[in-house]
Amino acid sequence: MSNRKPLILITNDDGYQAKGIISLAEAIKGLGEVIIFAPDSPRSGMSSAISTIHPLRARLYHKEENFTAYVCNGTPVDCVKLALNEFTDRKPDLLLSGINHGSNAGISVLYSGTVGAAIEGCVFNVPSVGLSLCDFTPNADFSTAADVARKIAERVLENGLPKGICLNVNVPAGEIKGIKMTSQTQGKWVNEYHRSKDGSGRDVFWMTGNFENWDAENDNNDEWALANGYAAVVPVKIDMTAYDLIPELKEWTL
Amino acid sequence: MSNRKPLILITNDDGYQAKGIISLAEAIKGLGEVIIFAPDSPRSGMSSAISTIHPLRARLYHKEENFTAYVCNGTPVDCVKLALNEFTDRKPDLLLSGINHGSNAGISVLYSGTVGAAIEGCVFNVPSVGLSLCDFTPNADFSTAADVARKIAERVLENGLPKGICLNVNVPAGEIKGIKMTSQTQGKWVNEYHRSKDGSGRDVFWMTGNFENWDAENDNNDEWALANGYAAVVPVKIDMTAYDLIPELKEWTL
Repeated sequence: MSNRKPLILITNDDGYQAKGIISLAEAIKGLGEVIIFAPDSPRSGMSSAISTIHPLRARLYHKEENFTAYVCNGTPVDCVKLALNEFTDRKPDLLLSGINHGSNAGISVLYSGTVGAAIEGCVFNVPSVGLSLCDFTPNADFSTAADVARKIAERVLENGLPKGICLNVNVPAGEIKGIKMTSQTQGKWVNEYHRSKDGSGRDVFWMTGNFENWDAENDNNDEWALANGYAAVVPVKIDMTAYDLIPELKEWTL
Repeated sequence: MSNRKPLILITNDDGYQAKGIISLAEAIKGLGEVIIFAPDSPRSGMSSAISTIHPLRARLYHKEENFTAYVCNGTPVDCVKLALNEFTDRKPDLLLSGINHGSNAGISVLYSGTVGAAIEGCVFNVPSVGLSLCDFTPNADFSTAADVARKIAERVLENGLPKGICLNVNVPAGEIKGIKMTSQTQGKWVNEYHRSKDGSGRDVFWMTGNFENWDAENDNNDEWALANGYAAVVPVKIDMTAYDLIPELKEWTL
């Protein structure tokens, strides 16, 4: 088995036709055997959502030596689960999710389907990396982000990642000064809805908003790195337990 | 302002007609002014998903003194965001999500819409609690879980919760021996799909599976507590950064 090429699973949340996933696959192809297993349409903001009511379907759409691509009607996490349960004959050495069109820094880690897929890879003990470019445009230039992706992929293939931890990588648009290891910026989205009327005069609410940074003085977080021209790498834990609080909770009289 | 009753926001992921949310609202009504803002249909497994493409709508369906109820076409997190951005005139003192029909212990914290809503309340700095009963049946007996919910709600209204931490509460079916403060059990779901055929003979994959406990020797986790007749309370952190790993990552040559 050890003389087989590394197996690399690629997914995303913008769908299999997005420029970001195509750029990622091109940058990664030389590193091993690549399987794309991606949603059939954009699934932004899907977090770790799973399909519990509707069945999943998958369709092979490309096959050549060391490169196979499937499209699936599920969420990013559905794609990871279905690929690893039913479509791979060995555990991947690496999962890459992205490259997302748009930032997943700060609190967006919670909502991101891109990061959701990386977290799911981590649940399977596959070293996993979510990748995003801070540019929402469909035709964004992914060349720098793809370079960052390849460097990180090489490093993770070499050394792995600790169990229960994946990486959330965000790359600013344009040239970068380097790559910083950072924490998740504290803050939240505000003014999140644009209220308008439908054709019958009823209120409808469209998601919008801006990020309120509660941590702007801190130069060790991802928003600081991005604002200053660096790619930001946040190690993300899948065990969300606040262990420090348990002793205090045990004092509660209930 | 201080002589106003506490404001309690209630949501869930099983939809506004589920027995779990009705039981919760009944148990909580006496504690303050209650607003229900819940999905119009079941949204299980929605995690922290948000609606980025379709607009949201909300409809008032009940109003009496100190009790107002809205139904919304979004996910649990959409409900929390829309309620707090557009439908409340003050910040709630407490958010309760549930009571879910089915367990959200262990790794299910990642996929749960119930917990997703509690995490979102926490993003807004509202003390927030996700509540689940380990019984999937629509007509489950929620009386014990509702008692637990009321006790925890009283306690959280009195003392609050630390910033950035919410509670994930799971209650076993039947009688309970007490309430334990625990960690999230390590493990994952396995055998996650049932493969069958659609009417045209094509493969479809239905979500199923069983939880593989990697942490069965540990009597301080939520699965242990539930299996031994206790309600389990896990404090959940919304900052997912693995701070301990950052110094090691800084050694990487990239």
